[in-house]
Amino acid sequence: MSVDLTTLSAAVAAEGIRSGQLTSEALTAACLKRIEDTDGQIKAWAWLDPEYAMAQAREADQIRRAGRGLGALHGVPVGLKDIIDTRVGPTQRGSELYTGREAKRDARLVERLVEAGAVIMGKTTTTELAYLAPSETTNPHNPAHTPGGSSSGSAAAVAARHVPLAVGSQTGGSVIRPASFCGTFGFKPTRGLISRSGVLSTVPSLDQMGVFANTLEDMGLLSDVLSGYDQNDAGSLPRPTPAMLQGAQSDVPVEPNIAWFDLPYHDRLQRDAHDGIGAVFEALGAQIERFDAAPQLAGLTDVHKTIYDYELAQAMSDKVTTKAHQISAEMRSAMTRGNEISTAQYEDALAVQTSAGAFFAEHFNDFDAILSPSATGEAPLISEGTTGDASFCLIWTLAGLPCVSIPALVGDTGLPIGIQLVGAAEEDDRLLRTAAWVQKALVNAGAELELEA
Amino acid sequence: MSVDLTTLSAAVAAEGIRSGQLTSEALTAACLKRIEDTDGQIKAWAWLDPEYAMAQAREADQIRRAGRGLGALHGVPVGLKDIIDTRVGPTQRGSELYTGREAKRDARLVERLVEAGAVIMGKTTTTELAYLAPSETTNPHNPAHTPGGSSSGSAAAVAARHVPLAVGSQTGGSVIRPASFCGTFGFKPTRGLISRSGVLSTVPSLDQMGVFANTLEDMGLLSDVLSGYDQNDAGSLPRPTPAMLQGAQSDVPVEPNIAWFDLPYHDRLQRDAHDGIGAVFEALGAQIERFDAAPQLAGLTDVHKTIYDYELAQAMSDKVTTKAHQISAEMRSAMTRGNEISTAQYEDALAVQTSAGAFFAEHFNDFDAILSPSATGEAPLISEGTTGDASFCLIWTLAGLPCVSIPALVGDTGLPIGIQLVGAAEEDDRLLRTAAWVQKALVNAGAELELEA
Repeated sequence: MSVDLTTLSAAVAAEGIRSGQLTSEALTAACLKRIEDTDGQIKAWAWLDPEYAMAQAREADQIRRAGRGLGALHGVPVGLKDIIDTRVGPTQRGSELYTGREAKRDARLVERLVEAGAVIMGKTTTTELAYLAPSETTNPHNPAHTPGGSSSGSAAAVAARHVPLAVGSQTGGSVIRPASFCGTFGFKPTRGLISRSGVLSTVPSLDQMGVFANTLEDMGLLSDVLSGYDQNDAGSLPRPTPAMLQGAQSDVPVEPNIAWFDLPYHDRLQRDAHDGIGAVFEALGAQIERFDAAPQLAGLTDVHKTIYDYELAQAMSDKVTTKAHQISAEMRSAMTRGNEISTAQYEDALAVQTSAGAFFAEHFNDFDAILSPSATGEAPLISEGTTGDASFCLIWTLAGLPCVSIPALVGDTGLPIGIQLVGAAEEDDRLLRTAAWVQKALVNAGAELELEA
Repeated sequence: MSVDLTTLSAAVAAEGIRSGQLTSEALTAACLKRIEDTDGQIKAWAWLDPEYAMAQAREADQIRRAGRGLGALHGVPVGLKDIIDTRVGPTQRGSELYTGREAKRDARLVERLVEAGAVIMGKTTTTELAYLAPSETTNPHNPAHTPGGSSSGSAAAVAARHVPLAVGSQTGGSVIRPASFCGTFGFKPTRGLISRSGVLSTVPSLDQMGVFANTLEDMGLLSDVLSGYDQNDAGSLPRPTPAMLQGAQSDVPVEPNIAWFDLPYHDRLQRDAHDGIGAVFEALGAQIERFDAAPQLAGLTDVHKTIYDYELAQAMSDKVTTKAHQISAEMRSAMTRGNEISTAQYEDALAVQTSAGAFFAEHFNDFDAILSPSATGEAPLISEGTTGDASFCLIWTLAGLPCVSIPALVGDTGLPIGIQLVGAAEEDDRLLRTAAWVQKALVNAGAELELEA
């Protein structure tokens, strides 16, 4: 076959497998070949067993040939961030603390993937415990640059066409930022839609699952599969989930209203990203309404930090006393900060988190989405020792709102830059619909908004 | 509104709620009124809290008004056999052993109903521990007769239009038999499709979940919602499930081939049921091929009994020593039998169970379904002290095959009699499609095949 199967979207691949035009075996083999050819440099995979992947692919094909039930992701390979437990293969969480760790049970979201017929391709790298200390993964666009974190391997694997889909998580900006740096789509559905059972818990009030793909439609498809009620996750929403694939495939009923908040941390935007956002403003024209930051918003990044550090210190307290040498300096200093936060400060922060939710809920009566940068600009150099600045994600994560990163811009050194759209809680379908409209509007406004210096 | 909302199928009700033609509040209130009016005699409910049901209905309506995600059973009331754990309300398993028992967690299938937006109406009666000792439920067609067991309340509640849908279970004939006696449709999907986590386990090698509804389509709709992989249930199938609703809605590609086995226990068929089956043969004509019972088949009811008694005795052993006075004579004698079965006998029976699966798998290469009686005839009188004879269900249950009961016949005293269709494992979609064809063929052949004496 002359088509490079790794270029197919998950939706197209699933349809091809369903109709018999394509086998999962061929698709999975093409993905494995692509990994073999390129992962020596990218290093997106923490664990991968080609035989295990191929066995699942052959079983998916066998089910199809037997005329049995097919799942929504039948035969489609999916990568899993290495904080998601699987019974097959290790789950090592990017930390020496967990080298060789084998989980006894699959995470709930893995059960959902099995039920959808997906091929579990393997585990993608994560920063240490999904926090800041980088994995060895490089940016597929330029190996001197970081892919971002903490979902480093998931973003890089999708960007490099190792797999059409990958699952990550976001506690600060760990889906949106690597999506932006790697030039993929990233999507963090509303807090509580995707169960975290069987996923490393570091900051229960903030941890959220997210997805990477190369089309909006694919993110809707994967998110529909992953989402659903799970009584084992105290944050799981006990009700139906939005129809996200349908949202991504829908036309907007009228041109959407998009808000922009001028926020104090916008001074961190690099020049190329700043100009890129300017071009987006031009392309979307009258659909964007600009607001001064409400005082409530400006303080929310600190509230996020308080909750983050406090709960992280709690989650890790037993580790730091006995195994401090296996914990990075970044993590230890976060825990030190966390231990200095009083219970009263922490409880105040949780109260603000709740009121932020109410503030945004009202806001979305008038707007379909908030536009925001995804990150400060292009991916930093690995030599800078950081996976990048998550500032532009924190307040939306705090409020548990759905966030999409669209790979719309290209920076000064040719690396991708994403733009972020934030939607109303539990209206993820509306957000993806709006994102599809924005994407088309940007394409129409000027092929890609490449920013020549 | 002049339509009696309790006459709506679940599919029509869900579509009405989705489109805004109907509210869950109105539907649930109508169901509660119907229960209030008729359950004094039928006694289908082991636990019901109208306020709890109405609160769920109002929430379902609120979600719809807010434009949030809707589930496949959004706002539709469902009854649950009282062996299915729910966090709200007691789960008393029809046994004095469990009077007042409150489960800490929902069964997995309850999570799926919540995710589908269903209204959990309450708990329907079961025979003692889903075995033989009757509940106080009466047959909605005639209170002097049994509704059948063990899913007595689920069958009676659907037949009486208390709810459009109910969940039951079958270890012998506990879905198909009460469906037949009460004149509803009953469906036991392939073993392993619906998780048993959080459901009373009596005979792990045989216990299977099933559903009751008043249309084939509704059974497909509910079964799709309930089915899916669950690693907590060792028998759960780790792959996609058949598209059962779609099966029930599909036309057959060609007229189906249906097999009939002459089995030794057919001499238990009552005259009216025998004549009814004769009329079915006439109506389906050349589509039925008749076989002498293979020797493998004839012995399978004993194999079923061996596994049943052995595992039941194991499951209940701790109870019988300390609390024998709270256990019925039927249950105690089954346990006595079970304790007399040797491990070797039991293991032989499990081996035959496995080979029966292989026998049927081959058989279904040539046939779409096996036709069988659902039960021996009309529902027995309650005064006979039995919930009826399960013989016609046992070998299909043993093999874990999907079984449907269609309320096709009426017996000498005016009570309903079902006919059973059995399908290939994991081809539940094909079975429901075949059942829809059979149902139409019977209707065309003579309105209903009412058998006047």
